[in-house]
Amino acid sequence: MTALKNDRFLRALLRQPVDVTPVWMMRQAGRYLPEYRATRADAGDFLSLCKNADFACEVTLQPLRRYELDAAILFSDILTIPDAMGLGLYFETGEGPKFERPVRTEADVDALSVPDMNDDLGYVMNAVSTIRNALNGDVPLIGFSGSPWTLATYMIEGGSSKDFRHIKAMMYKSPALLHQVLTVLADAVTAYLNAQIAAGAQAVQIFDTWGGVLSGPCYQTFSLHYMQRIVQGLTRQAEGRQVPVIMFTKNGGQWLQSMAATGADALGLDWTTEIGHARDQVGDQVALQGNMDPSVLYADAPVIEAEVGRILADFGAHDGHVFNLGHGIHQFVDPESAKIFVDAVHEQSAQYHAQS
Amino acid sequence: MTALKNDRFLRALLRQPVDVTPVWMMRQAGRYLPEYRATRADAGDFLSLCKNADFACEVTLQPLRRYELDAAILFSDILTIPDAMGLGLYFETGEGPKFERPVRTEADVDALSVPDMNDDLGYVMNAVSTIRNALNGDVPLIGFSGSPWTLATYMIEGGSSKDFRHIKAMMYKSPALLHQVLTVLADAVTAYLNAQIAAGAQAVQIFDTWGGVLSGPCYQTFSLHYMQRIVQGLTRQAEGRQVPVIMFTKNGGQWLQSMAATGADALGLDWTTEIGHARDQVGDQVALQGNMDPSVLYADAPVIEAEVGRILADFGAHDGHVFNLGHGIHQFVDPESAKIFVDAVHEQSAQYHAQS
Repeated sequence: MTALKNDRFLRALLRQPVDVTPVWMMRQAGRYLPEYRATRADAGDFLSLCKNADFACEVTLQPLRRYELDAAILFSDILTIPDAMGLGLYFETGEGPKFERPVRTEADVDALSVPDMNDDLGYVMNAVSTIRNALNGDVPLIGFSGSPWTLATYMIEGGSSKDFRHIKAMMYKSPALLHQVLTVLADAVTAYLNAQIAAGAQAVQIFDTWGGVLSGPCYQTFSLHYMQRIVQGLTRQAEGRQVPVIMFTKNGGQWLQSMAATGADALGLDWTTEIGHARDQVGDQVALQGNMDPSVLYADAPVIEAEVGRILADFGAHDGHVFNLGHGIHQFVDPESAKIFVDAVHEQSAQYHAQS
Repeated sequence: MTALKNDRFLRALLRQPVDVTPVWMMRQAGRYLPEYRATRADAGDFLSLCKNADFACEVTLQPLRRYELDAAILFSDILTIPDAMGLGLYFETGEGPKFERPVRTEADVDALSVPDMNDDLGYVMNAVSTIRNALNGDVPLIGFSGSPWTLATYMIEGGSSKDFRHIKAMMYKSPALLHQVLTVLADAVTAYLNAQIAAGAQAVQIFDTWGGVLSGPCYQTFSLHYMQRIVQGLTRQAEGRQVPVIMFTKNGGQWLQSMAATGADALGLDWTTEIGHARDQVGDQVALQGNMDPSVLYADAPVIEAEVGRILADFGAHDGHVFNLGHGIHQFVDPESAKIFVDAVHEQSAQYHAQS
């Protein structure tokens, strides 16, 4: 493999000194970019875009051609694992993801097993190695997976949800059944991320998009516990470097201390938690990634720059900050605003890093 | 007016001693009750149900006939004020509320004014006095309003939203324009709640359903600031008693200390915050209302009872707890489970209150 030309992102995740704060954007390969929409049109539909390594590689690289980003992230869907489990993933226009066969009964749960990473999910590993080669050492490549709880919400609800009634009914009425689902998923996610690392991913992020809909005790038992198992089962060294793990629970700002105790290297933050307050809570245990409200990118340049400055100042002159949005970039954002954002992070952050 | 036979709810909101912890349920008059569905069918549609005092009174009283609830809450819609502002509220089946004329431009904002409480919103006051008479002093009646920020989200988005892109674009791009909207709304909500109090409401709750989608600084500036103005403008005494104010920001668990500093008597809590932790933060400044996950009501009796016990123990032997769900009761809950919940609160809480 080619030597890494820019390793700021990996260094910041391990709380090592950097010259400027590294930055990337969740969903940076996405619909706000006209070139993404063009590639997606060529691919036909969203799943075809994910399943073709050349298309997935192309959209992964698109934002890096426009912006001075410090990391690339594998372009893929969050629901590849349940899809590989045979639940029949499909997308209805404007409706989000759906499963033909939701997991509701004991028989449904008994039928679940860890998919084969090279067979059922080989297309993902193929995309990882294709992207890694194409990056040519410019910046590191992030692999990712949904958390077991988050994947389970889609599998049990049969798609997106507002009240999570099926999974919560199972959680409160038949907790053992839900634990069975989550155990299979934790094993699957561990194997999935390790396969991505073997294929070339240099850091991994666990997206717990829906952990924040739980009470504190249920979050610990049904989401965090399984993420911790994954962290413990991951390959943490590859190609002579540490492979950092980022754990992101949206709306998880009240549970940062327990998240930091899992052994993850970094925690993702949404914008509802002040990053300085988060840092006070986790101290030097973990790095922090975040956390500008993606809606700030609807504003004019001075507002974007001021908000970047506010977050940098709130984090302060410490190691261990990766700048990001608090959630995925919105599809209606002007691509020019993303450039203002990325450049502002680099320009304004040098003052917080000792020049050695 | 008849003397109040059960004032536990009002006493607990003012952190006065009670014999058992009072309990009510957000959305207790609702679709989970077959008798509600029957009355709604008689009324024709949802808005007709809200606008006819006899129907509104009937559905308000229905849950009190089934359960030993310690308070009634006015049955009404959260969007009565924007409707009275002439924005054209309507409901599409399965789609939630919509406005024919969303507020987007400076001209739209300039056209907004505080509606007349006796004319445009007289039907709400009529419902309040009708319900108050029908209650005959059994339990207190709660009036309510959406918060300015929450009302503004519907007015500016034109309905429900997932990413709040129009209002957030206005917030970051044209904050003065949004402040103008929120100022009119704060005046309108103050007048609206005062009119409800004059008509017989004995406590009021401000529902800030969407304050939790903001960053900390934006929450302070665009939601909490206007709720504080309302609290300061409210009639706090009526019929020789204090009229307590409850402030509820869903997903506001990180901001309880600033909420407690507004002068509200009580804070509503969703289930993502531990009530004992919340109490540690706010001390004796305010009472707390909450906070069981409504999804617990999908479980069997022992689980419901255990969860009630856990929350009571977490709050501990202090004055100032009103038990509630952390959000509205779900439509698919078995009405029998709500009875198990309400009875469990009364039965298990006596031990936490000194018997004088």
